[in-house]
Amino acid sequence: MAGAPSLEDIRDAAARIALYARRTPVLTSRTLDEMTGAACFFKCENFQRVGAFKFRGACNAVFSLSEAGRGVVTHSSGNHAQALALAARLRGIPAYIVMPRNVLAIKQAAVEGYGGHITLCEPTLAAREETTARIQRETGAELVHPYNDYRVIAGQGTAALELCEEIPDLDAVIAPVGGGGLLSGTAIAVAALRPEAAVYGAEPAEADDALRSLRAGRILPSENPKTIADGLLTSLGEKTFPIIQKLVRDIVTVSEDEIVSAMRLVWERMKIVIEPSAAVAVALLLQRGAGFSGARIGVILSGGNVDLDRLPWRAEGGLLK
Amino acid sequence: MAGAPSLEDIRDAAARIALYARRTPVLTSRTLDEMTGAACFFKCENFQRVGAFKFRGACNAVFSLSEAGRGVVTHSSGNHAQALALAARLRGIPAYIVMPRNVLAIKQAAVEGYGGHITLCEPTLAAREETTARIQRETGAELVHPYNDYRVIAGQGTAALELCEEIPDLDAVIAPVGGGGLLSGTAIAVAALRPEAAVYGAEPAEADDALRSLRAGRILPSENPKTIADGLLTSLGEKTFPIIQKLVRDIVTVSEDEIVSAMRLVWERMKIVIEPSAAVAVALLLQRGAGFSGARIGVILSGGNVDLDRLPWRAEGGLLK
Repeated sequence: MAGAPSLEDIRDAAARIALYARRTPVLTSRTLDEMTGAACFFKCENFQRVGAFKFRGACNAVFSLSEAGRGVVTHSSGNHAQALALAARLRGIPAYIVMPRNVLAIKQAAVEGYGGHITLCEPTLAAREETTARIQRETGAELVHPYNDYRVIAGQGTAALELCEEIPDLDAVIAPVGGGGLLSGTAIAVAALRPEAAVYGAEPAEADDALRSLRAGRILPSENPKTIADGLLTSLGEKTFPIIQKLVRDIVTVSEDEIVSAMRLVWERMKIVIEPSAAVAVALLLQRGAGFSGARIGVILSGGNVDLDRLPWRAEGGLLK
Repeated sequence: MAGAPSLEDIRDAAARIALYARRTPVLTSRTLDEMTGAACFFKCENFQRVGAFKFRGACNAVFSLSEAGRGVVTHSSGNHAQALALAARLRGIPAYIVMPRNVLAIKQAAVEGYGGHITLCEPTLAAREETTARIQRETGAELVHPYNDYRVIAGQGTAALELCEEIPDLDAVIAPVGGGGLLSGTAIAVAALRPEAAVYGAEPAEADDALRSLRAGRILPSENPKTIADGLLTSLGEKTFPIIQKLVRDIVTVSEDEIVSAMRLVWERMKIVIEPSAAVAVALLLQRGAGFSGARIGVILSGGNVDLDRLPWRAEGGLLK
């Protein structure tokens, strides 16, 4: 893929990952419909393999490689790490995952469970990049960036492709935004399949770099972001930013309280487990409820990986751990 | 319905409740399949209205009434109370719900939210029956027992009807057993639609009255049951017992540890919220894993109503609150 992905690239990705990824269900909720006055359709990527949409992009990247034998490498302490490890195992190639030394043991174990080779490094950007580059040199593995990669963006777009196929008459689609891989892939799919629909990015107010970047017209980094939505801490990349700039109607921020309330509401009423990053999109839906009245709204529930021993409504004296 | 429900009665119930109840999805899980060696199909009644299968039976009973104007009455502090209140509201008739004085405020509020008229009574069997009988006399309302009612049994059977329609070649079906409404309805549907399949009742070892009753050949009451599966505290009724005796292959008990582990596993890996009573069926599946190897197993996940502030893995020093 030379330039930004097209709908065709997303369709190719869908065909490429069809044997491996789940076609996740679209759920509805009477409660959420009543609260918003809209007809809401939730694309359940929490049911995706490894528990998040990240598997789509990683899988597309891995199965796009013409010469894959030397494996793939990435730096990630989150869902992308597991996703790449599983995708590589499915293709029978090594996956090298660079993680910061302070990564949770449970996340390290999950990557190892999928057969990933972990290299720990100091928790700094410089150490992460140097370590990744070194592994690339030593192994010849191909870098698969968590979001700043057109193959990954095309893969993430397959969730919205499926959503638009199943619910063809949406008026708007909401996806959370961190690095922008999911949001840019979603925007490409929706713009091509349903140009009437507005695409919104949902972002924690405590990590509002995407909103600031869009306003400023250039990529602004995250500044000491502190949000429970730990999948959305990263800043936009130079591949995701122009797509979002061109195709996304707006970025809307939500508070930490709104995120936790939305997460709890979905658990209690929809009976599904979503992670805080996914709840960010639901929080936008609820915040704009009246504005969406009468409309048909798609919401991408990005993932469901949470630590059940550290739920936000457990903590005393505040929402954050 | 003069005698025990037939498959036709269950089909009639399905048609009667079709406008109101959800046709819940059947989910699969790679993790559970790998753990058991079986192909597992989970009928998600946690996604049912009011969050539990109970709505099916209550709805069938309410919409079976030829003269409904005087309303319905029941005693229940659990899901049946909410289910009957909602079903009555949908038909536009009053629902009188007798609850013990020590009922949780949240459960009382849920019934009131559906427009149910609550009468509190002392938390004894005598007070409950006396109060219910008095309301029947005063209002002329029809009693809809939580499980010892053929209309309710037929309604509960619609979950297995849908499951067998969607997955026609099951080798076994597992449902939890408390009063036996779900299990007996399930057994009737499966015996008629898929006679090759064995039906198992899953019961907490700490509330094993159904197992003891089956062994003894007569209904034995619960003796001071103490289980986290609070939907399964009741004893079999004279309408459910003979059906279970005739059509259920076996009752299998599971420990409290097994229930909590199964519940947590489903939350973590399937990303859905199930209540302890539903986890009892999953615990049986896991306990008998090897015995089910190679088979196609249906599991009825009966409900998803849990208090997120009181999760069993929160408590210190033990599983029970």
